[in-house]
Amino acid sequence: MAIKIYGSFRSPFVMAAGLAVYEKDQEFELVSINMKSPEYLNNFNPFGKIPSYQDEDIILFESKAIMRYVATKFEGQGTPLLGSTVSEQALCNQWLEVHSHSFTPLILELGRAISRNPEQPDFSVLKPTLEALAKVFDIYEARLSASKYLAGDSYTLADLAHTPFFYIFNALSDEGTKKILTSRKHVYAWIQDISSRPAWKKLSDRPENTYYKSS
Amino acid sequence: MAIKIYGSFRSPFVMAAGLAVYEKDQEFELVSINMKSPEYLNNFNPFGKIPSYQDEDIILFESKAIMRYVATKFEGQGTPLLGSTVSEQALCNQWLEVHSHSFTPLILELGRAISRNPEQPDFSVLKPTLEALAKVFDIYEARLSASKYLAGDSYTLADLAHTPFFYIFNALSDEGTKKILTSRKHVYAWIQDISSRPAWKKLSDRPENTYYKSS
Repeated sequence: MAIKIYGSFRSPFVMAAGLAVYEKDQEFELVSINMKSPEYLNNFNPFGKIPSYQDEDIILFESKAIMRYVATKFEGQGTPLLGSTVSEQALCNQWLEVHSHSFTPLILELGRAISRNPEQPDFSVLKPTLEALAKVFDIYEARLSASKYLAGDSYTLADLAHTPFFYIFNALSDEGTKKILTSRKHVYAWIQDISSRPAWKKLSDRPENTYYKSS
Repeated sequence: MAIKIYGSFRSPFVMAAGLAVYEKDQEFELVSINMKSPEYLNNFNPFGKIPSYQDEDIILFESKAIMRYVATKFEGQGTPLLGSTVSEQALCNQWLEVHSHSFTPLILELGRAISRNPEQPDFSVLKPTLEALAKVFDIYEARLSASKYLAGDSYTLADLAHTPFFYIFNALSDEGTKKILTSRKHVYAWIQDISSRPAWKKLSDRPENTYYKSS
């Protein structure tokens, strides 16, 4: 059975799951579903969220669990994604949690606010979010001036998880807002790096990606 | 160097990190810190949260990264915590994410509301939270009627992560609120099970645990 990912590329979490599959040189079918339908709730994810993942061995939900599973199942293929030492693994896990708890809430808040009014986002409302985000990126800048990637010298799931969020952020925001990223040298170089990987190009070029355009 | 955990047992995240150390038959020193002090921000966690962890090899933050690191580093000792098959590992990861995104936000909201006014919590304000929590526990009930633990037949980090939250919930809430748990047979048996483990007894009996009392 081919790998199936349930959901839509409108969700950066779905794109992250797909990106992990591509980094391991595997293919997948993107299956469009109604996430509140009884069929989806009963068979794929009782919490009614996307993505869910299915292969011949397992049905799984939660994007980070899917990413970890794919990285483990196809361990010898494609890009190693879990960190090569116990310490790199630990830092990969640490920065995946930072992604969940410090990065994602702010960037989704910003994305929602901008997409409500893409022509003229209300920056007075966005100010506290932008300030909080700037502080978070100061911490990323410090980290990425000490090591090329979040977990160390190698690209891992910790970096991978961020890619679709920057893509959506870039597609939605104006030059002023983007300055949060471009003004931080190491963060900006890192985003350029992780966004120029062949697996990401291949994913964002898929015909199902009709929601955002790279800028 | 002995293991040090930075933080306070007022935080269930700190207790979860300590519990993982105890399940692996290790000891640790609990170090009280000011999490907004420059020393802590510079040396332990730039995000100013607890817990942080230190041993001879690493300084690490984010409780789930700490739990995973401890489970890996002391793999042959104490309780296996990561799941024994690829599928069990994947489900352990899945339910750790459920803990982060579906369980914790609601139970912390409830905990905060109750601790603001422990004598007479305002249940009209709490109603949406309690209803959302009941739906989440319906999903746990379905899962725990199919397997003894969240990831399968064995206790893993997915179960461990929940223990301190139920403890605090039990200490703070009244009989009416507790019914959300006691009315669900499998959830309730699971909570009794994970809360009666020697590692948890040992942890909650530590003299630093002055914030909550078991009921």
